[in-house]
This record gives sequence, structure tokens and C-alpha cells, in this order.
Amino acid sequence: MRKVPTAILLVHCPDQRGLVAKIADFVFHNGGNIVHADHHIDTECGLFLMRVEWELEGFQLHRDEIVAGFAPIAANLNLKWDLRFSDHRQRIAIMVSKYDHCLYDLLLREASDEFQARTALVIGNHPDAGSVTARFGIPFFLFPIDPQNKAEQEEKELALLADHEIDLIVLARYMQILTPRFASRYPNRIINIHHSFLPAFIGSRPYHQAYERGVKLIGATSHYVTDQLDTGPIIEQDVIRISHRDSVEDLIRKGRDLERIVLGRAVRLHLDSRVLPYGQKTAIFD
Amino acid sequence: MRKVPTAILLVHCPDQRGLVAKIADFVFHNGGNIVHADHHIDTECGLFLMRVEWELEGFQLHRDEIVAGFAPIAANLNLKWDLRFSDHRQRIAIMVSKYDHCLYDLLLREASDEFQARTALVIGNHPDAGSVTARFGIPFFLFPIDPQNKAEQEEKELALLADHEIDLIVLARYMQILTPRFASRYPNRIINIHHSFLPAFIGSRPYHQAYERGVKLIGATSHYVTDQLDTGPIIEQDVIRISHRDSVEDLIRKGRDLERIVLGRAVRLHLDSRVLPYGQKTAIFD
Amino acid sequence: MRKVPTAILLVHCPDQRGLVAKIADFVFHNGGNIVHADHHIDTECGLFLMRVEWELEGFQLHRDEIVAGFAPIAANLNLKWDLRFSDHRQRIAIMVSKYDHCLYDLLLREASDEFQARTALVIGNHPDAGSVTARFGIPFFLFPIDPQNKAEQEEKELALLADHEIDLIVLARYMQILTPRFASRYPNRIINIHHSFLPAFIGSRPYHQAYERGVKLIGATSHYVTDQLDTGPIIEQDVIRISHRDSVEDLIRKGRDLERIVLGRAVRLHLDSRVLPYGQKTAIFD
Amino acid sequence: MRKVPTAILLVHCPDQRGLVAKIADFVFHNGGNIVHADHHIDTECGLFLMRVEWELEGFQLHRDEIVAGFAPIAANLNLKWDLRFSDHRQRIAIMVSKYDHCLYDLLLREASDEFQARTALVIGNHPDAGSVTARFGIPFFLFPIDPQNKAEQEEKELALLADHEIDLIVLARYMQILTPRFASRYPNRIINIHHSFLPAFIGSRPYHQAYERGVKLIGATSHYVTDQLDTGPIIEQDVIRISHRDSVEDLIRKGRDLERIVLGRAVRLHLDSRVLPYGQKTAIFD
Repeated sequence: MRKVPTAILLVHCPDQRGLVAKIADFVFHNGGNIVHADHHIDTECGLFLMRVEWELEGFQLHRDEIVAGFAPIAANLNLKWDLRFSDHRQRIAIMVSKYDHCLYDLLLREASDEFQARTALVIGNHPDAGSVTARFGIPFFLFPIDPQNKAEQEEKELALLADHEIDLIVLARYMQILTPRFASRYPNRIINIHHSFLPAFIGSRPYHQAYERGVKLIGATSHYVTDQLDTGPIIEQDVIRISHRDSVEDLIRKGRDLERIVLGRAVRLHLDSRVLPYGQKTAIFD
Repeated sequence: MRKVPTAILLVHCPDQRGLVAKIADFVFHNGGNIVHADHHIDTECGLFLMRVEWELEGFQLHRDEIVAGFAPIAANLNLKWDLRFSDHRQRIAIMVSKYDHCLYDLLLREASDEFQARTALVIGNHPDAGSVTARFGIPFFLFPIDPQNKAEQEEKELALLADHEIDLIVLARYMQILTPRFASRYPNRIINIHHSFLPAFIGSRPYHQAYERGVKLIGATSHYVTDQLDTGPIIEQDVIRISHRDSVEDLIRKGRDLERIVLGRAVRLHLDSRVLPYGQKTAIFD
Repeated sequence: MRKVPTAILLVHCPDQRGLVAKIADFVFHNGGNIVHADHHIDTECGLFLMRVEWELEGFQLHRDEIVAGFAPIAANLNLKWDLRFSDHRQRIAIMVSKYDHCLYDLLLREASDEFQARTALVIGNHPDAGSVTARFGIPFFLFPIDPQNKAEQEEKELALLADHEIDLIVLARYMQILTPRFASRYPNRIINIHHSFLPAFIGSRPYHQAYERGVKLIGATSHYVTDQLDTGPIIEQDVIRISHRDSVEDLIRKGRDLERIVLGRAVRLHLDSRVLPYGQKTAIFD
Repeated sequence: MRKVPTAILLVHCPDQRGLVAKIADFVFHNGGNIVHADHHIDTECGLFLMRVEWELEGFQLHRDEIVAGFAPIAANLNLKWDLRFSDHRQRIAIMVSKYDHCLYDLLLREASDEFQARTALVIGNHPDAGSVTARFGIPFFLFPIDPQNKAEQEEKELALLADHEIDLIVLARYMQILTPRFASRYPNRIINIHHSFLPAFIGSRPYHQAYERGVKLIGATSHYVTDQLDTGPIIEQDVIRISHRDSVEDLIRKGRDLERIVLGRAVRLHLDSRVLPYGQKTAIFD
């Protein structure tokens, strides 16, 4: 993996002249070596989005001084911004139900050092996933959900997530819909995998819907969770070819590979600070 | 292209034991050499679908005698069936509006002998396509459509299509919706290209819809036209990757390649008698 | 998974008239219900290849009688053939070195019932994989290989494989080249995953070769092992897009997903008796 | 298409601190609005590559003054650089043999305003393409090539290309190999389409080679022509799935779609100044 630690600045503001130059100049005048700089102007919204990454080695500001050093520039330019460090290991909570293929996949990617992160805990609404987490030595918390206890259980989950200082929540085929209250507590920090090519086949049993409709490709979509079902900003999508020979069971099997890969890519893009959500969309700086 | 002429039998019936054997046996006992045989059982519907293709050379029944020869077997097995000959050039009518990329593409594929067909005429609701057809020496008929004259113009179009003994109608980015009356006259013989990954983005301006939603892939879908908008049996679909950098104009440009290829494949599959529509679906025997 | 047990007949012979009919007729006259029948004629080689699958339920021959029943027909038609049963769980041996992503993937697919098979043992030339197999309760055998002991170790491996009545050997990123003697003992029963789009980048370090060449896609290829390096019949291939931004490490990471999926598909196709190798090629009846 | 004219600066130099900032600063201090800025550091070669694009409107230097304005900065930083203007229509020469699908495709893309370019002339070594160019009103020059006259004919072609001030030469399935002398006159300005996934199947008849080898995907590669056959820097590649059912003729047919699309994308990337070749590779700033 990456050896030299870097600082990553994510910027978001109304478009105006000189933004690239002024931000690059801040890095340069403090002796930083830029390893990645990319920006996007959404001309319809008049919005400027940028990602800059530079090596901390040789940078004249200590990592604790960068916020104070950049704040006046940001204030002057009216920026919304966020500073990250590449060597910070984010803390992940994974939420699952019965299906364990995405859970396994995430834990194996973490073990292969694909993620700059540590899975701090797994929450299940069903006990099965516990045997998987045990193999990886990760704490498992069971919160069975039914219509009566949902609000109450979510409160406990939120308390647990806060206690463990969770940075990112991944819904790895979690078959419950989070309440808007829960979703709003982690804006753009809850990633879901939906097993269809959104916006096709929103809601439940998308493989059954795809089978009924007779499509020739099935898809999977990874997106941030908002308070509206399956409409959050899309991070990554992909598809796979199917034929009339494929039963619903075949779709489910083929879809598992798709779900694992699409979710794995989305989580990695997020952890590497390469996703800038804005409105109902994302810019992906990869 | 294929040199030896073949007969193609398409069969459709409730599933029962022995269908493959009995149909293959009919061909064999008359001395036919099977070059392709494929079938599908839709277990949910209890439906059997089959395509058999054999060389006419050496077959003991003359091509005019095959229908009479097979009819008793078909009656006995309660088959719906259709007999085609690979050396029959089907007659196509293409319907277009202003965009000419799909029209050009179809005419070039025909010129490259990709299609066992001849485009007999082109119908436009806009005069622009006339200059394209002139280059290829194909008659062009202009039927401008407005809400008042639609039924009347369609009557004239249907008369023209009947006069020219048209086998297949291809809507090559034809921006009008056919009336149910028109559609019902050519069941499973009108192929449309819709510029989205159906069932996502049904209706008008799908690229604008895709842009607004922030999807990461765009698609195109070729399907048979029924009396309901964009819900006919799907023949072929494909997708292409886009990014946040792509404007609506970029989506339209990238989509043109997709539309041409998806429509070209669908038309070819139909002309080669490889598509068996049933219910809202198709089996593709390629 | 499939509930009704079936018989699968794989046939291979010089092309001649009536093969489809005669084989289908054998099934039908014994009361079998064909659920899949597909064939291919390689006109260049004059070769006929066929796969027929029918339900054992209701078939008048007991599964032990089918060989005797079909043998006279086969002799008459000069067929090479093979009979399989869908409910037979094949016994797999997986061979690995240090990388464990393909090993994990195969074991998880088995646990998800994607394979009609059981992994009987894992052979490693390096001890690391032992911790993975322990989690799944599968015996692990360590045979460290060096230039001096290779022939000797292979002898022991062959003895072990024979003892365990292994049907299929999967080289899941096994970094040793098998001797021709070993390969010839399991013709078309050793599946390898090569981490390139063959025939590009044969041999060692294909991701490094791909990086040097500046290709825009990388691939993976699953093939049967023959006595010549990386030239056996190809079962499955796929590719993934890369860019100039990707380092060799990124290629290795992206390639892991590709290797897992391509190998998983190839193993499944083989286990379902859907692969008919002939010459340097395969026909895939999926 | 893009309405506001822009300047595009392509930069190429040994990596050093401050390059992004200094180049962005040049644009900003002259009042330019950057619409695209992207760079790549090849850490193995120690090379820095950058593309910056800004609006000419509001820029304080007239377009004729930019070279003089930037030259001192470039000299100071030891840059190799190139300045382009988005409203400059490049002049293309297309070279063809008998196959006309890529020729047609390029001319139709130009007619659809996909290219900021004008095809000034077409050179053929075979008369057939003349009827295509006539339809589009483009001059056609016939230079039949045989082993005896090759050097002589190339001299005439080079003279013609010079006369017409050609910026880019596109080999649209031109079946002759250019001499090193010819290739060296237009470094990184001759784009070829090779009908395989390079480096697989270098040389002649790649579809036949692919058929013989039994691959499961075929590809096409667009690359700059150098003095060595099929080894120039790759701009774009793509693949399409094939099966054992596909004959060589099917590969050729499927490959035509691939060739058209891959070549179309490569030409567009080049014309938009998004390709930076270095060594045997390219960086693509799209």
C-alpha cells in the first residue's frame, strides 16, 4: 500500500475564478508535493468541487497546524472543506442480516490491506453472521428488529456506534430499512448495496422483479443512504449479462458476485476520500 | 454469409415429454442434417420453446411440402409453430424522425451483408432523413405527424406497409408513439430502440433523466413494440460507463454508439429467427 | 439448487446425419424428460459435440443400467461419450501457494452451494494457506517444492490425490508449474487461473508485463492444464479497465477480483458438465 | 458542442515540487478560468505530465501572446510543452484499403460534430473507398502499393499530406505497413486500429489467430504508429464476448463494431488533446 502519508483536502463551493490556483498555491507555498489534484465544475449548479492530495513529508505545516493554516483562505473563498490524512484508519461498522457474502468479502478485503480501515464491530438483526465475525475476531452485536421494537433498537445501535467512534457504516445486504432519524445521524457516511441497477427495481426482491420483466442484464448499485428509500447519491454501479435460461436462483447467484464487487469498490472509494457527494449525485475523483 | 439454405422451425407449446425427440425425429426421418437445435422450458409457465434448423440440401421434402409434412405432428402435440427459410430475404421498413445515426447504421449493416433482409422503404415524420436514403437508393415517404392527423397518417402508413409486403418494421429513433391500433397490426414484428436501460427511465428524455439521477452507467434497450409504452418484450440491452464529468450532451453522444449496436444486434437476431417472444419476455437462441 | 436429479450425456464424434435425433430418441423411448439439449458442429474439424440432460425421475432405465443401454447406440454411431449424474458430488483438490483469495473464494462458493462438489483436501507448497483451510475444517497437506525435490514431491501428491479419489484439481494461484507427467495424469481435469488475458502475457509476472506495455484493460483466463505452459483449452476469460493512474499494485488488487470470478465460473461450468474440450478449444454449453 | 473557446496546455517534464501550483498560477494571474486540470506522476520514470484547460474569454493574454507569456516559466521549470486551442479544427487524412466500415464511421462522427476536425482527404491503396468519399464530398487519392513501388508511393503521399497541412493521419483498417521513414515523419500523429487485444495476436489475420486459439473474448486496440509493428503507445482498447459457435466470419462481423468504437474514441481523445504519450505508454486525461 501507499507508504508516504498524505493530506487530502476536499473542497466544495460556488464556482469562481482562481480556485485551483489558490488552493494549489497554499500547498506549494508550504512546501508540499501534490500527488493528486482533480476538480469538477457542475456548470448547471454553478458548483466547484475539488480534491487535492499532497505528501506530508517536507510540508512546512505540521498536520495539526494545517486546519488553522488553511482556514483563512477557506473563509475568504467561502469554501466548505474537509481535511483527511491517508494514514488515518477509519473505523467501520458493518450491518448485516442473513446473507454473509458481502460481509465476508469486506473482511477479506480488509485482511488484504485493500482498505485503509478497521472493522470495529458488526451489527446483525439475525444471529447467523456471528460465526463469520468470530473467525475474524470481530465483535458481533445482535439487535433483532421487529415493527414494534425498531425505534428502540435503533437507539441502542446509535449509542453503540457512538461509543465505538464509528466513521463509516456499511449495510452489507442489511434487510432492514433504517429510519430517517438514524440515516440523518450519519449523512454521507452510510453506504448501502442495492441488488439492482437503480433506479430500476427499487424496493424489495429486485431479482424477482428483473426475472419477471425479462431484462437481459442485472445490476447492483452502491449508494449513500438518505432518508428516502434507494434514492441516495450513487457511488458505483455495474451489471452482468443474463439470459432466458437463468432462473431467479441463477440471478441471485450471479448477483452475489456483482454485489461484492460493487460494494467493495464503493467502500474503497469512500475510504480513500475519492467521493464527493453533492445534491443527489457524486463526483468520483479516482 | 451462410451458404447452404436451411429450414428453421420455431415451436411454442405446453411442456410435455418427448418434444425434443419427436421434433428432431421428424427432421431425421426425412433425411435432414440438423445444424442448430436449442430449446427452453419455462418451468414457471410450463411452456416449451424450441428452435431447430436443418439443411434443405438432402432433405426429402421439398420446401413447399414441409408445412404439410409437419402439420399432423404439430396437431398431435398441440404446437404453435412457424417455419422459415434462411434464404428468404425479409422486407424491412425503417421509421425515423430527425436523428439519422441508427438509420445509417442499419443501412450500412445491410450493405455489409449482416442482415438477411432488404430495406424496402423508409418512413419519416420529418424530411431530413430523405438525404440519407437517397444515397442508398431507397424510397423515402414523408408523413408529418401532429396530434390532429395522427390516426389518418397511420392509416396511410399501414396501407403503404401492406402494399410493400413489409415483414419487419424498425423504429430507428422514431420519436412518435404508435397507436395501439398500429402496434397490434404487427405483433412481435415492430422493433424499437429505447435510449435507456429499461425499466429505468421510461418515457421521454431518458438521458436527461439519467443525468439528473447521477447514474454511473447508461443503457439502451431494443424491444418489440406492444400497445403499452416501453414495456414490450426485451430483445437486447447493453450499457456504457459514464462519469460526473459527462454532460447531457456527452450522454447523448456516448448513447449513440450504444443505440446503434443494441438495435443492430436485435434486428439481426430477429431476422435470423433467433428470438422467441412469450408473455412479456423473449428466449434468444443464439 | 436443482432438486430433481438428472443424467447428463456428453458426446463427441465425427459429424454425421441424424445424431441429434438418435440421441434424443434414446432418451425419449426410455421415458426421459429432456431439460437441456445443445450441440455444436465444428465444420472445420468435421466434429460433432453434444450435451443432453434429462430427469432420472420417470426414466425407465435405472441409473446403473444407462451405460449398458446406451453402449450399443454409441458403438453403432462411433461416439466418444461420458455419462454423469447431477447429484454426484465431485471431489476437488485445491493447490495453492501464498495468495489465498482464490482459495477463500472457492471455499465460500462451495459453502453457498454454488458447486455440486466437496473440497476433499488442499495442497500447499507454502504453509500460509493452512490457517484458511483450518477455518473451513478441510485437511491441508504441505509439499514444499524446490528444483531438487519436485519430481519426488509430485509423486507423493499424485499418491495422495489417488487415495482421496479426486475428480478435479484446481490450481488457485499455485505458483509452481506442474511437470508434463503430472498434467498428463488428469487430462481436462486440472483447471488453472492465469492472471492475464491469454495469449497475451504468457509466463511469469503478467501484471508487471501489462504495466510495462501500457494496456488499457487487464484480464484473467481459466483453462485446462496441458503439458505446455499457458496454452491449454480456455474455459473462461474476462477483463477489467485500468488507467495510467494504476500502479502494478493496483493491477494486482483489481486483478484479484477478476481471478476469483473467472476461476469461480470455470470451476462451476466444469462441475456442471458444461465444458467439452476438443483440440486446443472448448465448447461451453451453458 | 463546447461553446466557449479554451486554451489547452500539455506539459511533460521531470517531476519536481510546485509544478501544479506554478502552472495553475500562470493561468490565474492572467485572469483565466480553469475548466479542467489533471496531472499524473509516473513515479518509476520520475516524470510529471499535466493537462490544463482554461477559457480564453476574460484571459488577459491574447491567444497569440500566450506562448511568449508562458515561455519563461517553462524554461525555468525545464518543461516540454504544447499549446492548443479548442476552436482550432485539425485537418485529418484517413488512409484505407478495401474495408470501409471505419472510414464511414469516422465521416459520420465528423458529420455529427463529435470531432473538432475536418477530414481534408482520404488516401486509398485500392479504388473501392472512392465511392464512399464521393458521397461526403471529400477528395480521394489512389496510391496502389506493391513491394516495388512502396517507397516511391509513400514519397508522393508525404508530399500530398504536407501540401494539405495535415495534422493527424488515421489508418482506418489500412492494410499496408508504413515504412519507418513515413512513421517517423508524424510522431504521435498517426493513429492505427489493430483488430486484436494487443499484445495478443500481433501481425496479420488476428481474427483467424483468435479463432484458432479458442479465446472467449476478442478485442480491438487503437494506438500511435511507431517504427515497430503493433507496439506503439496504446490509446484505447475494448473487447467483446464470443463463443465456440462463432465462426471466423462472425468474429470479423462482431469485430467491426469494436473497431469502429475503439477507433472513434481514440481519435476523439487525440483531437481533444487528452492523450499524452510518453515512452511506450499514454496518459489519458478524460
